[in-house]
Amino acid sequence: MRNFSRDHRWLSINTATVRKSRGVEQPLTTIIEACAQRGIKAISPWRDQVAAAGLGEVSRLVKTHGLELSGYCRGGMFPAADAAGLKAAHDDNRRAVDEACELNAACLVLVVGGLPGALAGKAAHKDIALSRSQVYDGIATLLEYARAAHMPLAIEPLHPMYAADRACINTMEHALDVCDALDPGKTGALGVAVDVYHVWWDPKLEAQIERAGKNRLLAFHVCDWLTPTADLLNDRGMMGDGVIDIPKIRGWMEAQGFAGYSEVEIFSSAGWWQRETSEVLDTCIARHRSTV
Amino acid sequence: MRNFSRDHRWLSINTATVRKSRGVEQPLTTIIEACAQRGIKAISPWRDQVAAAGLGEVSRLVKTHGLELSGYCRGGMFPAADAAGLKAAHDDNRRAVDEACELNAACLVLVVGGLPGALAGKAAHKDIALSRSQVYDGIATLLEYARAAHMPLAIEPLHPMYAADRACINTMEHALDVCDALDPGKTGALGVAVDVYHVWWDPKLEAQIERAGKNRLLAFHVCDWLTPTADLLNDRGMMGDGVIDIPKIRGWMEAQGFAGYSEVEIFSSAGWWQRETSEVLDTCIARHRSTV
Repeated sequence: MRNFSRDHRWLSINTATVRKSRGVEQPLTTIIEACAQRGIKAISPWRDQVAAAGLGEVSRLVKTHGLELSGYCRGGMFPAADAAGLKAAHDDNRRAVDEACELNAACLVLVVGGLPGALAGKAAHKDIALSRSQVYDGIATLLEYARAAHMPLAIEPLHPMYAADRACINTMEHALDVCDALDPGKTGALGVAVDVYHVWWDPKLEAQIERAGKNRLLAFHVCDWLTPTADLLNDRGMMGDGVIDIPKIRGWMEAQGFAGYSEVEIFSSAGWWQRETSEVLDTCIARHRSTV
Repeated sequence: MRNFSRDHRWLSINTATVRKSRGVEQPLTTIIEACAQRGIKAISPWRDQVAAAGLGEVSRLVKTHGLELSGYCRGGMFPAADAAGLKAAHDDNRRAVDEACELNAACLVLVVGGLPGALAGKAAHKDIALSRSQVYDGIATLLEYARAAHMPLAIEPLHPMYAADRACINTMEHALDVCDALDPGKTGALGVAVDVYHVWWDPKLEAQIERAGKNRLLAFHVCDWLTPTADLLNDRGMMGDGVIDIPKIRGWMEAQGFAGYSEVEIFSSAGWWQRETSEVLDTCIARHRSTV
């Protein structure tokens, strides 16, 4: 297992972590500069942040600073209530692949979607099996396009508490079942993003990481599970402030040959988003060295 | 599948559902009277409510009204940080079995516990595998006592969002693995409580209900998953107000021969606990007939 205590060579910052500084939305360009100043080698930006800053400008900045992208957030949201919705998701996902290519991302992260309309509080139906079927079809179709573009797709199993509104793939086992069906050759074109927040509770986690193997372990995200957790979405903790044994899980990843970035992704509306970007990034660096 | 639309013969009220009326804590005796008045045939009371009203008085009232107990809430909370804590949990669980026997409950529901101290916000460690081992040992020991008392133990897999602080058994599969190990003969002494709130998201749910079979399907709890969900613990919805396809899951239960009560268990601090007990119970009856 790699020794992270000496430097932060393998730290990546998911830019949602510093989306706000003292509660104020920050431009992605500012975030990138702050990361580069600290010798951070990789980021994982969100599409809305990229769109606001301009894809060309972000691409230029990333190259200027020699930054890598540990992933690009995000594609997915496949299920829809009608054919037009499915088509719109399909088209948007192809654009996400294109953007990920322009930014030379290691993978496009897929948050696959749940029951259509549920995110807005009005689920169109209760048939989660139907959503899962649409997700399967959506990934199958997108995979052809992504494979041609040489952009790996990383299915991110989300915590089961997001099954209704954000992602109906909620376990590593389910994600890997999809990988087995759509990419039986384990070519690396399709794999998983392992976020400790979503999967730490799973008694089958070690076995499923082993099942995934190096070619399918495309990304590793870290934060922490707080007790109590005040909000289902935006109360993630800084590594070390919660109950997840992160080094143990990283060890399982690395035992399979994973040698990529450890990407910090923290949504924290009342916590870290209320602090200065500089403090958050410095804390990420320190915790990466001490706790990841 | 039984037709629930004509009456509420198979409705049980978990008394936490009407723990408060207009925000004011209600005595269990009042709750029992309100249920009996409406021809509700079964309840599932909580130990703290029983203790406050007095076990003898509750036992007398239950008999007077000819009420059944679809379950008794709850035993469990096995993990502890030291031997004294393990012993205290052990002793308390034996008392829970005794009380369940006195009340002639169909089963003692087990919420098995998570990381010791996490519920109070101070986890003693991060080793969920250790907690799971203590849970296994705790159930094994309690099972001997419960078997002699002829009180079935129902492991309730809780939603993974409670893995840290309330229960580290979070899937039907895990619960049934424990059942297989401790009661390979499927005698009915050990089984599961299936609460749709905790398990609806699980892509393996139908298969695991089938695996459980009639002898291990000891209880069926209903409520609904709201979108959005405002609070991890106390924002459960009334059946029909959320996204869970309850009849589908009940159908899977009954296909295995389950013929027991459908127990309404709703924790709702800002919602149903702010309404009158009468309104809540009447709504439970209506939704039981229309939506369960």
